[in-house]
Amino acid sequence: MVRIGIVGGTGYTGVELLRLLAAHPQARVETITSRSEEGVRVVDMYPNLRGHYDDLKFSVPDTAALGQCDVVFFATPHGVAHSLAAELLATGTRIIDLSADFRLSDAQLWSKWYGQPHGAPELLGEAVYGLPEVNRDAIRNARLIAVPGCYPTSVQLGLIPLLEKGLAQPDNLIADCKSGVSGAGRGTNLGSLFCEATESMKAYAVGGHRHLPEIRQGLQRAAGREVGLTFVPHLTPMIRGIHSTLYAQVPDRSVDLQQLFEERYANEPFVDVLPAGSHPETRSVRGANVCRLAVHRPQGGDLVVVLSVIDNLVKGASGQAIQNMNIALGLDERMGLELPALMP
Amino acid sequence: MVRIGIVGGTGYTGVELLRLLAAHPQARVETITSRSEEGVRVVDMYPNLRGHYDDLKFSVPDTAALGQCDVVFFATPHGVAHSLAAELLATGTRIIDLSADFRLSDAQLWSKWYGQPHGAPELLGEAVYGLPEVNRDAIRNARLIAVPGCYPTSVQLGLIPLLEKGLAQPDNLIADCKSGVSGAGRGTNLGSLFCEATESMKAYAVGGHRHLPEIRQGLQRAAGREVGLTFVPHLTPMIRGIHSTLYAQVPDRSVDLQQLFEERYANEPFVDVLPAGSHPETRSVRGANVCRLAVHRPQGGDLVVVLSVIDNLVKGASGQAIQNMNIALGLDERMGLELPALMP
Amino acid sequence: MVRIGIVGGTGYTGVELLRLLAAHPQARVETITSRSEEGVRVVDMYPNLRGHYDDLKFSVPDTAALGQCDVVFFATPHGVAHSLAAELLATGTRIIDLSADFRLSDAQLWSKWYGQPHGAPELLGEAVYGLPEVNRDAIRNARLIAVPGCYPTSVQLGLIPLLEKGLAQPDNLIADCKSGVSGAGRGTNLGSLFCEATESMKAYAVGGHRHLPEIRQGLQRAAGREVGLTFVPHLTPMIRGIHSTLYAQVPDRSVDLQQLFEERYANEPFVDVLPAGSHPETRSVRGANVCRLAVHRPQGGDLVVVLSVIDNLVKGASGQAIQNMNIALGLDERMGLELPALMP
Amino acid sequence: MVRIGIVGGTGYTGVELLRLLAAHPQARVETITSRSEEGVRVVDMYPNLRGHYDDLKFSVPDTAALGQCDVVFFATPHGVAHSLAAELLATGTRIIDLSADFRLSDAQLWSKWYGQPHGAPELLGEAVYGLPEVNRDAIRNARLIAVPGCYPTSVQLGLIPLLEKGLAQPDNLIADCKSGVSGAGRGTNLGSLFCEATESMKAYAVGGHRHLPEIRQGLQRAAGREVGLTFVPHLTPMIRGIHSTLYAQVPDRSVDLQQLFEERYANEPFVDVLPAGSHPETRSVRGANVCRLAVHRPQGGDLVVVLSVIDNLVKGASGQAIQNMNIALGLDERMGLELPALMP
Repeated sequence: MVRIGIVGGTGYTGVELLRLLAAHPQARVETITSRSEEGVRVVDMYPNLRGHYDDLKFSVPDTAALGQCDVVFFATPHGVAHSLAAELLATGTRIIDLSADFRLSDAQLWSKWYGQPHGAPELLGEAVYGLPEVNRDAIRNARLIAVPGCYPTSVQLGLIPLLEKGLAQPDNLIADCKSGVSGAGRGTNLGSLFCEATESMKAYAVGGHRHLPEIRQGLQRAAGREVGLTFVPHLTPMIRGIHSTLYAQVPDRSVDLQQLFEERYANEPFVDVLPAGSHPETRSVRGANVCRLAVHRPQGGDLVVVLSVIDNLVKGASGQAIQNMNIALGLDERMGLELPALMP
Repeated sequence: MVRIGIVGGTGYTGVELLRLLAAHPQARVETITSRSEEGVRVVDMYPNLRGHYDDLKFSVPDTAALGQCDVVFFATPHGVAHSLAAELLATGTRIIDLSADFRLSDAQLWSKWYGQPHGAPELLGEAVYGLPEVNRDAIRNARLIAVPGCYPTSVQLGLIPLLEKGLAQPDNLIADCKSGVSGAGRGTNLGSLFCEATESMKAYAVGGHRHLPEIRQGLQRAAGREVGLTFVPHLTPMIRGIHSTLYAQVPDRSVDLQQLFEERYANEPFVDVLPAGSHPETRSVRGANVCRLAVHRPQGGDLVVVLSVIDNLVKGASGQAIQNMNIALGLDERMGLELPALMP
Repeated sequence: MVRIGIVGGTGYTGVELLRLLAAHPQARVETITSRSEEGVRVVDMYPNLRGHYDDLKFSVPDTAALGQCDVVFFATPHGVAHSLAAELLATGTRIIDLSADFRLSDAQLWSKWYGQPHGAPELLGEAVYGLPEVNRDAIRNARLIAVPGCYPTSVQLGLIPLLEKGLAQPDNLIADCKSGVSGAGRGTNLGSLFCEATESMKAYAVGGHRHLPEIRQGLQRAAGREVGLTFVPHLTPMIRGIHSTLYAQVPDRSVDLQQLFEERYANEPFVDVLPAGSHPETRSVRGANVCRLAVHRPQGGDLVVVLSVIDNLVKGASGQAIQNMNIALGLDERMGLELPALMP
Repeated sequence: MVRIGIVGGTGYTGVELLRLLAAHPQARVETITSRSEEGVRVVDMYPNLRGHYDDLKFSVPDTAALGQCDVVFFATPHGVAHSLAAELLATGTRIIDLSADFRLSDAQLWSKWYGQPHGAPELLGEAVYGLPEVNRDAIRNARLIAVPGCYPTSVQLGLIPLLEKGLAQPDNLIADCKSGVSGAGRGTNLGSLFCEATESMKAYAVGGHRHLPEIRQGLQRAAGREVGLTFVPHLTPMIRGIHSTLYAQVPDRSVDLQQLFEERYANEPFVDVLPAGSHPETRSVRGANVCRLAVHRPQGGDLVVVLSVIDNLVKGASGQAIQNMNIALGLDERMGLELPALMP
């Protein structure tokens, strides 16, 4: 059994980790931390978990207890993993960080977008960006894994087949992304209220969203050069799901795009290329660790449109974190992650 | 492995059977029928199942093929199981019927409420009403199981602890029930349209709903006498879930209701009595085969209020059907049904 | 023109007052207060009002400015109107209070349910309960009007025809009420988050809700005696709307209930009795100042079921407040309130 | 009073015409047609209109009755206005057609996209495209007005300020549009069911949507040359609203985009340019005849992003139709259309 610790377990990615780990045959959650909810039973906060974690209580973070775990997940706001990672790694445990702390390899870039100094630049050298479809080998040996953001996962999986082959003009990429409200977390912000968010649609952060540099970093690695990207996120009245609509100029009209995508992901257990002409729905991945893709060339023109859907809490966060754990520990990558999506 | 056939697999209870059976370690779906969708791949209709049933296609109902199954589920409109049951039973297979065909033990009562003659009255003698919390022993040997309706499941589980003990006055029971829209099925009715059903609440069938005689039959068995019941169903703007608010006069104020409910369901794997003072949410059972209950005596008066929530497609249909299968076949009753609910 | 002040205009009943008053030919909003938003333009907080109140800004409450208004609406949490009412009345303005401060005529009862001393018991004598269908004459001369709560409006309008005539047994009335989330206000509570409230249904405050004594007071006035009432509110995943399902024993089966209700409300501009057999939907009153009712006697039994729907922000709050203003000022009661509901 | 006829009044644009006309001081609906609902009272189908159209019944289309109207609105599927327009115009009435029949000035192009011959090419010469912000003068004298589609309205209003001035590169325009489900109409299609559409997001018709040639025609008129446009519509889980996110290369970075948009629409009563940095929400226009716009240049690059929101049933259909009527008849263009949006 894998002994697991979770730091910051009260948010949506925390409870989603618990839900998914309940179906993982090798996982045992030993400790879950929350300063604000110390002593509260997990099932009193999350009654859907009654019968699964009846004895688990939130505790204050304790390096000794966490250090006895094989894996520690951070489901925390940015900055927390910075402050605890070095000490924890010294105990020999592995860290899988769902926050943004180690996603950017450039500490200065991180500081610019997060508005504070990077708290652990000395660890950036060994931090691995946990997108298995790109970095599987590096993940296998990693002690410190940065789980990609939700938008970055859906955008990168949609665009890298075009960029890796040099088919897309890299200067004017566009990612028009629609996210469910759970992407904003469990914090009590006005904009996340039911009466503010339901029955409405809006863009936000058009001027610049923190996922922009992360996406650009990933696309640049795929393209092997600088890329220009416009990223417009939208708040959509649904709990879960990201639908990324991606636009790229692909002037070579002789390319068989369907074949390109199918081959790129032929051996990927969690990327599903739909048949030509398809329009994936976010509900088809609700609760499941999968990204479904479709690729179109509307009206036979130069502009290619890729449609990419994930569940932001699963393939966009907690599911991908477990996928990383499986790889890092040498388990079957699929373990605990094969359940179908909930539909309807 | 249990060989499984599904008759009428295109509706919501059909796809939910497939979703749940994908997590069942002993189940193998051999055949699924649909006259209208013959030859269509299941995953083309339900992309959430891609990767799980990639080779399964809808076929026309064929007694020979179904007869080679160990269990045949009927996820059909009423009347279909009537016409096929006898022939199928003769092949030695078991039938678990999710429709209303064998729920009422009185053929005349069935005819009155369903507006047509009962098609198989000779089978009523051996048909078992598949509410495990009441009928577990009979289910164990059953060849023909009638899975309870969604409303009847939630109402019976909420009221039988009071009725079995003779504590509730049986003449004026009230069940005020709120159901998600999936209870209306996948048919293209005007009232099921998004723009007609969302952002609104309404009662329906106040004059008389087909689940009324089924609920009354179950409550009468528990009470050992006639009961008077007013049942008002409501359409609620959500996909899944039933919230039944149940009202009963319990004049004996010395009864410890919390203890009564906890003891009644102490050994039930799929009934969860919440702590005193709780208010169960339907989302706490979304996708899970569980009924959560809370019991209140507001203002210390005679009237007791029981709150009962289920997922209408799971404990109210497909999950309970699998629970019946497990019992009938001597498998662990929990098998394939232990996953936590999806929340948020 | 009627000069209008609004105290506490940042919540949902405040913005709804502004929306409705924009359509009122005699209304001019002179001042709107909010301590927390002082200096903010109303349209920057509520862009739906752009073009209507472009110059209006929130200001700190100022008795002098408010005193120059003909009418001051309080759209505040309880306790605020208590502290300001006497001073304001002394200036000669009228107060229409949407909060609970003056709804209960018994100061001690108020203290018990609101957990603090009543702040202005000396004003209770002249405070008028602003349910026009019951109190129209008193409203005409009132200086201080307590606008009924949302649940109390829908429940009283549904039950008083039966109680006034002595037809309903008053000991065991039940009000099973379903409210949209806007009833919880614009405060940033966890339970009001989109991801917590959507796709779910739950009861709350079964043990005792603050609207219980208000409803009971109104029903007792109609019945001319004590009544026993069980009131169970539910949170429903929609923005607006209350659906009250009301249960009363009416042993005299010879009563023509349809006729009774139609006659009771024959001259009421804002109560609409639907044809026999109807099931009103909350969306049919979305944004409109109307209560729609239907009355049923299921299965011909003793128990009568009344279905009552309102928009909690309109007939349950701001619309009814304006209706009171119209009556109090001698304007046409319908003025500004005749627009149809928004459907779909 | 303006005598009004409505052909095909049972759909969502029909009922929305009735709702809006109820607030129009000069409008009187004389006749409304529906073959399938002949004899049915309008209020029995649309209870939100009770008290407003109590005597109005659906009738079969009758040229004599319609010919006595001053204005006849067509709220019909495409093809119907083709067959009736000539005969009706001969009676001297005006036609305001909400369908697609007269939107494209090229009959062959129409045939290609609608899959049938154009039924009235001889009328194309006098048909006026009813986008007041572009065609106000022509509308004033028009007998036959083609009301723009919902997507085309939101896209054109967002892009024409850039195209008219020759600022945007016209070859690679992108319109990523998100529509509420009411855009699909009141037909009982599987994809419009609540359980299929809620809690999900998907693109559709990426290969080619019928609004594409209409949008392109409008943009070309503004640009004075051919334009290249990629248009991707998405189905969003809300009743009303279109959010168009528009992408255009504007290489001249010295342009003050905010000023450009404000000046272009300075005198437009129903186009609202939000302050710089804004993100309009569709709910801010719910039920209102207004388009709200915001313009951004993310990261200071060449690509400009315009955000454009409308209510698809109002400014995208019935409200704009009434706006056209007001202009054509010489009434105040704002008449009956000034009510604020419903929010929350």
